[in-house]
Amino acid sequence: MTTLVLVSHPHLADSTSQQFLKASLPTNADIVWEHIESQAHLDIEKEQAQLRQADRIILQFPLYWYAAPAGLKQWEDTVLTRTFVYGDHRYPLADKELGIVVTTGMPAKAFQRGGAEGLTLDAALAPLAAVAHRAKMTWLPTFAIHQFAYLEEPEKLQLVVDYQRYLTQTQPDSLQSRQTWFAQKLPGMIDQLPPEQQATGRLIEAEFAQQQDDLDALADTLSLIKERDDD
Amino acid sequence: MTTLVLVSHPHLADSTSQQFLKASLPTNADIVWEHIESQAHLDIEKEQAQLRQADRIILQFPLYWYAAPAGLKQWEDTVLTRTFVYGDHRYPLADKELGIVVTTGMPAKAFQRGGAEGLTLDAALAPLAAVAHRAKMTWLPTFAIHQFAYLEEPEKLQLVVDYQRYLTQTQPDSLQSRQTWFAQKLPGMIDQLPPEQQATGRLIEAEFAQQQDDLDALADTLSLIKERDDD
Repeated sequence: MTTLVLVSHPHLADSTSQQFLKASLPTNADIVWEHIESQAHLDIEKEQAQLRQADRIILQFPLYWYAAPAGLKQWEDTVLTRTFVYGDHRYPLADKELGIVVTTGMPAKAFQRGGAEGLTLDAALAPLAAVAHRAKMTWLPTFAIHQFAYLEEPEKLQLVVDYQRYLTQTQPDSLQSRQTWFAQKLPGMIDQLPPEQQATGRLIEAEFAQQQDDLDALADTLSLIKERDDD
Repeated sequence: MTTLVLVSHPHLADSTSQQFLKASLPTNADIVWEHIESQAHLDIEKEQAQLRQADRIILQFPLYWYAAPAGLKQWEDTVLTRTFVYGDHRYPLADKELGIVVTTGMPAKAFQRGGAEGLTLDAALAPLAAVAHRAKMTWLPTFAIHQFAYLEEPEKLQLVVDYQRYLTQTQPDSLQSRQTWFAQKLPGMIDQLPPEQQATGRLIEAEFAQQQDDLDALADTLSLIKERDDD
């Protein structure tokens, strides 16, 4: 699966959250990463080709005034020509997944009726969702990072894993998809650990395999109970 | 009352609807008109001063991908600094009116659930409404112009009057506000007619005054009936 990550930020080098996400990109995965504002000029042919080749497209940006920065809108207005997106009923983006990675300076609770921002992230992102709808794309649940600056170290570690999963894990984000993803990624992750931590890594891998067996057994039991309930 | 009209369009000279609206601007009214993309660079001080001096602020643009063009977003991201809009709890834009004049290439019926666009204009403009909310501004009902290219001549004449009212008439757009506006504007409008049409103009003015008397009488009768109903 190819994932295209399009980052929009007017001052990328100064953004600690964007630098953190860049350093967290999955290795051993088919990822194309681009910073929109770094393009001297938007090469429409190249941008459209990248979109065509991707299976999952991620738009990643800080929320400025309840929308993406002007750079992403410029990209939309330039690259997403009507002919490309839905002209002649060809829909080259149909069935591709569109995911949003959005950072906000306010806590999650601000984004609701009565909250400081007064509207949900879903409402703020409705224009982008409408683009996805027009292009017949599949809209993924939004990946929101609130107040990155206040995250503690364990939360940041969790963020790395969740972000990598958002970019590469099979959708929907079910227990099954998550298990499969971890089973595939764990060996590679452990290989990258420093030698003195390899043993710990193998222990985690064994523990994970054991837990997976336990979960499978539990799932069997649950489905048996469910069958009985249905009688 | 001062009205600030901020127009965002990447190719203003090529837009027949924007040229029409520019030619329809009310004369004899305190209007400041600016085309955002024509500014060589956005002078933040000047832009903020213009906003401070206006009583009604109009953002006027074509709907591109369910939002304003990138130029307006750039203006938002640059001019609407947090310190300016709500920093130090000063709110310099509080109670000013914010109106949106939006042109769309699709008919009104496309903007609803199940319609070709699948979302309402209100939903598309929710991020701008959230800015107004944050700034404690008063959001005006949106002035939408659908498929300008297909308008017939009488519809265009109606558009001129409705547009002028949107820019200068007292809100809300009640029968009373409309009457007052017409009574104020009619003499000036008639003065601008070519000499051979002045007589027709005066007839319309007299007719309007007569209708206004009739309406006033009708309103009196209605309020009498209402009083009796309340007994």
